[in-house]
Amino acid sequence: MSNVGTPKRRGPYAKSAERRRSIVDAAFEVFASRGYRGGSLQDVADRVGLSQTSLLHYFPSKADLLVAVLNKRDAEADTGPIAEDGDFETTLVEQARFNESVPGLIELYSVLCGESVTTDYPGREYFVSRFARLRGEYSTELVMLREQGRLRAGVDPERAASSIVALWDGIQLQWLLDPSIDMAACLKDYLDSIILPEPEGAKLR
Amino acid sequence: MSNVGTPKRRGPYAKSAERRRSIVDAAFEVFASRGYRGGSLQDVADRVGLSQTSLLHYFPSKADLLVAVLNKRDAEADTGPIAEDGDFETTLVEQARFNESVPGLIELYSVLCGESVTTDYPGREYFVSRFARLRGEYSTELVMLREQGRLRAGVDPERAASSIVALWDGIQLQWLLDPSIDMAACLKDYLDSIILPEPEGAKLR
Repeated sequence: MSNVGTPKRRGPYAKSAERRRSIVDAAFEVFASRGYRGGSLQDVADRVGLSQTSLLHYFPSKADLLVAVLNKRDAEADTGPIAEDGDFETTLVEQARFNESVPGLIELYSVLCGESVTTDYPGREYFVSRFARLRGEYSTELVMLREQGRLRAGVDPERAASSIVALWDGIQLQWLLDPSIDMAACLKDYLDSIILPEPEGAKLR
Repeated sequence: MSNVGTPKRRGPYAKSAERRRSIVDAAFEVFASRGYRGGSLQDVADRVGLSQTSLLHYFPSKADLLVAVLNKRDAEADTGPIAEDGDFETTLVEQARFNESVPGLIELYSVLCGESVTTDYPGREYFVSRFARLRGEYSTELVMLREQGRLRAGVDPERAASSIVALWDGIQLQWLLDPSIDMAACLKDYLDSIILPEPEGAKLR
């Protein structure tokens, strides 16, 4: 009865979800600035004002926290499925341009991706799957472009798909260390070199 | 006099140099498998059978050890200056092929390079300089090729230089996670797309 007339208080479930979100946000910052191995659970706990024991109530291990951070990253950054009728090249170049506005996200990705090749790394499978998925998506797009007569002769769709992913990852690293690097322009140059322009007539459809 | 007739014992200087080398070798392994931040001085000390205090007698800090490991990496792996009369494309593709035989070196590079974007990382300056130097070397080569009429029209030497470095770094990451990726072929495809073949007559000179 004491709550009558005051805003409804949030239940324990909502509070718990909010707490989880703030822990993931804190872990995101810690892993981006110190890496997964270099960042400690204590650093994360300190940022949200919890003890390590309380933090482990929400995420039973540091590895679970890493998975949550990688999922958050995906939700915020990934290109997602490429629209059937969208233009492949434009979609990628726009995504690269967008990435310049989220350096923290790119930093997190670059650090965790480099660490993924270390021994017993809990995020390894994430990166193995991510690379396989992106290569699959991009090579499917390139095969479709080839069927439309828009892939330059001699281009191998699978190797080109690996190369798009590679160029993008590598140029992000250089950009983080030297922001004068034009990531989107480098990616566009490469795509222009393998994809032929749409015939004028087709654009007007 | 007691040493007469027995092999000359190695002096303290040689022993110290040998000890330093074995410490750097151990640090190389530790950083490659756990990263710089994740690898501890204790791990390195354990591998060479020293206490941490004794280890710090040879390398006053973990950061000093990182610099020594990066220098060792350079000595073992870098392409070095490109010979004036050497073929640029062949040199790079052969280096990429060679890299497949030294996965430990590539792993170390990928991990430390990813970490280089983290806060207060002692190897950051090394990677900033390395990228600037490679971009400079490659763009000089591409400008020379342009003067010989061998750069495809519209290729920007500076962006292409960044892209070669980026593609190479990125494809190494994918290869470490999936050895079926053909690093050298991806690099060659890209170089073939920007560099025109040497005219038949010129090859016979």
